[in-house]
Amino acid sequence: MGSKEFYINTKYYSLTMLSITEPTLLLDKNKCLQNIQRLVNKAKEHGVRFRPHFKTHQSHVVGRWFRQLGVQHITVSSLRMAEYFAADGWTDITVAFPVNILEIERINQLAKAITLNVILEDVAVVDFLEQHLQATINAYVKIDVGYKRTGIPAENTAAIDAVVQRIAQCNKINFVGFLAHAGHTYNARSHEAILATHQNIMEKMLALKAAYQIQFPNLQLSIGDTPAGSIATNFAGVDEIRPGNAVFYDVKMTLITACQPEQIAVAMAAPVVALHPERNEVILYCGSVHLSKDFAEVNGIKSFGQVVLFNGDGWSLPVEGAYLSALSQEHGHLRASANFIATLKVGDVVGILPAHSCLSVACMRGYTTLDGEAITTM
Amino acid sequence: MGSKEFYINTKYYSLTMLSITEPTLLLDKNKCLQNIQRLVNKAKEHGVRFRPHFKTHQSHVVGRWFRQLGVQHITVSSLRMAEYFAADGWTDITVAFPVNILEIERINQLAKAITLNVILEDVAVVDFLEQHLQATINAYVKIDVGYKRTGIPAENTAAIDAVVQRIAQCNKINFVGFLAHAGHTYNARSHEAILATHQNIMEKMLALKAAYQIQFPNLQLSIGDTPAGSIATNFAGVDEIRPGNAVFYDVKMTLITACQPEQIAVAMAAPVVALHPERNEVILYCGSVHLSKDFAEVNGIKSFGQVVLFNGDGWSLPVEGAYLSALSQEHGHLRASANFIATLKVGDVVGILPAHSCLSVACMRGYTTLDGEAITTM
Repeated sequence: MGSKEFYINTKYYSLTMLSITEPTLLLDKNKCLQNIQRLVNKAKEHGVRFRPHFKTHQSHVVGRWFRQLGVQHITVSSLRMAEYFAADGWTDITVAFPVNILEIERINQLAKAITLNVILEDVAVVDFLEQHLQATINAYVKIDVGYKRTGIPAENTAAIDAVVQRIAQCNKINFVGFLAHAGHTYNARSHEAILATHQNIMEKMLALKAAYQIQFPNLQLSIGDTPAGSIATNFAGVDEIRPGNAVFYDVKMTLITACQPEQIAVAMAAPVVALHPERNEVILYCGSVHLSKDFAEVNGIKSFGQVVLFNGDGWSLPVEGAYLSALSQEHGHLRASANFIATLKVGDVVGILPAHSCLSVACMRGYTTLDGEAITTM
Repeated sequence: MGSKEFYINTKYYSLTMLSITEPTLLLDKNKCLQNIQRLVNKAKEHGVRFRPHFKTHQSHVVGRWFRQLGVQHITVSSLRMAEYFAADGWTDITVAFPVNILEIERINQLAKAITLNVILEDVAVVDFLEQHLQATINAYVKIDVGYKRTGIPAENTAAIDAVVQRIAQCNKINFVGFLAHAGHTYNARSHEAILATHQNIMEKMLALKAAYQIQFPNLQLSIGDTPAGSIATNFAGVDEIRPGNAVFYDVKMTLITACQPEQIAVAMAAPVVALHPERNEVILYCGSVHLSKDFAEVNGIKSFGQVVLFNGDGWSLPVEGAYLSALSQEHGHLRASANFIATLKVGDVVGILPAHSCLSVACMRGYTTLDGEAITTM
């Protein structure tokens, strides 16, 4: 019996060329390209700049797919990630994370090499930058539109004005405009809820634009969340959108109604290692070091991933009622109906749609296309 | 102002030689060595073999600290990890994860090079190994003592016997004995609860030993969980213990009463990047890609890590009431009293005791000692 034959259960797995033996994050390149193209088209249709967030895929290779579709501006979540993409020829990068003054050397190196856009919310940080910058940067003032993570609350016009006017005094900092991340759309569970939040955000941001447009005629508004980026159609007055997760999507995004399961472009290939039909489970080689410990609540049940079956073209839609109910470091508990559990045996490889694809990519630091191309990340 | 001066708030941070600028997992080597020594002594005192689980530290360097204290046998959670430690001279390794038959080539390579111990629970897997093994391995039958992850329930003596007798027929598989992992001690919140679970496990395992000792006079019992390994004192009849997390400990282990906060040997150094006193928070550069998304429940409140302050000797005890209340990919929400929040400013570096150190190490893939030694992992 050849080494490739024994483990291929053709009923569930026919991607024989990949020779999966351990947890492997698979990327369906076609789905991914369609996801990118859809956003490119949408941005064009609405006349907004598409500045995708690259923290999801974290890869030069996937970045080039965006570039081939005309994308020239990107968003990242750390200066380290900005360096990584600058090294692959990206020349206009927004770091959508508060300026970390301890990394002033990185900021200066990047500012000398590319168009670096940062976000600011604190006069003390502007003071620091004015003292230490060795090249010019662009800055957005970060607005908190309700997510309560970073930024100045949109209602706190005094604090916003203080930072805007302080930036306006700095020679080495160009004030670009206002930037927001509506992370609270991730709590939505319907198109209506996403659109209501989006509309609210738009009103807050447009009010700021109106208030400052006389002083700054070229003032820009940047917003960026995958749910609204995927669903909303009103972007009038906004200058750019920054969705990131939409390149791959994941189970959380299906719950938010931001995508359909068939649009999810990544699935973890996971070997079955132990059968526990007495509790309607099999144990997979696929744990928190592969998927991360993030979860989605599917019909009120905690799911670390939904189960799909591989076929000649990629993978199936999620198997009804089959999900990862618990993870430890290397183990995943696949729970499903007795009937489904009975079809699995040790050595089978099943697919897991991640609860949160960004973190699964961060855990795996790479993925493999269905054609067998190994793609490395940062 | 020199580049090292501006960011050192000496009130909170005096490890100036480390020049922290981004999230950095720090290791207090003295605490770590004390943790190792305590377990070495305990195993000696109770006449059991100490076979530490290396999945927590995942590093050649820390492995050698164990070796210097006389440890010769280790546990790992994957064949890949077995290869990594075999490459550093470890010659007796237990893979405490169900045999993944898809990795038969790895198993054969390891079996030829070292004493490889595996765990089995399925006759079909034994059949497979008999057909494909190219060298001899040792095998434990995995017993489920109540955790309900892997293993044959201790009560299912028929299934246990079927696997034991099938292994006994195989020339290339030596039956060593029974192995259990009492993961359910992680739900304990007192010494009494840990000890009660431990006693229950001991009884189950000793009954199995009694049942098979005539057929297998050298039969071994292996148990391995950090809570019991840290607290219990009755190991009569057990042959080896396999605690892993105890090398570093973490916040979860303090809640289980398996350690004291001052025994935790790792802390994430995290820069403060945004101040939000209006909600008693600061935002740290320290997110789920650094700490993992695992959490502990401290006094009923979800905590992704507890807050410590750096000083000349390492770090303080946890700051009362200060914790990470939420994480996103790169952001951590440090929530604390208004008084404590008022002491922090952008550019300070605070310490975070991880909720779960194993996963933080897996995320970071390395750590730095307080002396500045960078330690890489697998």
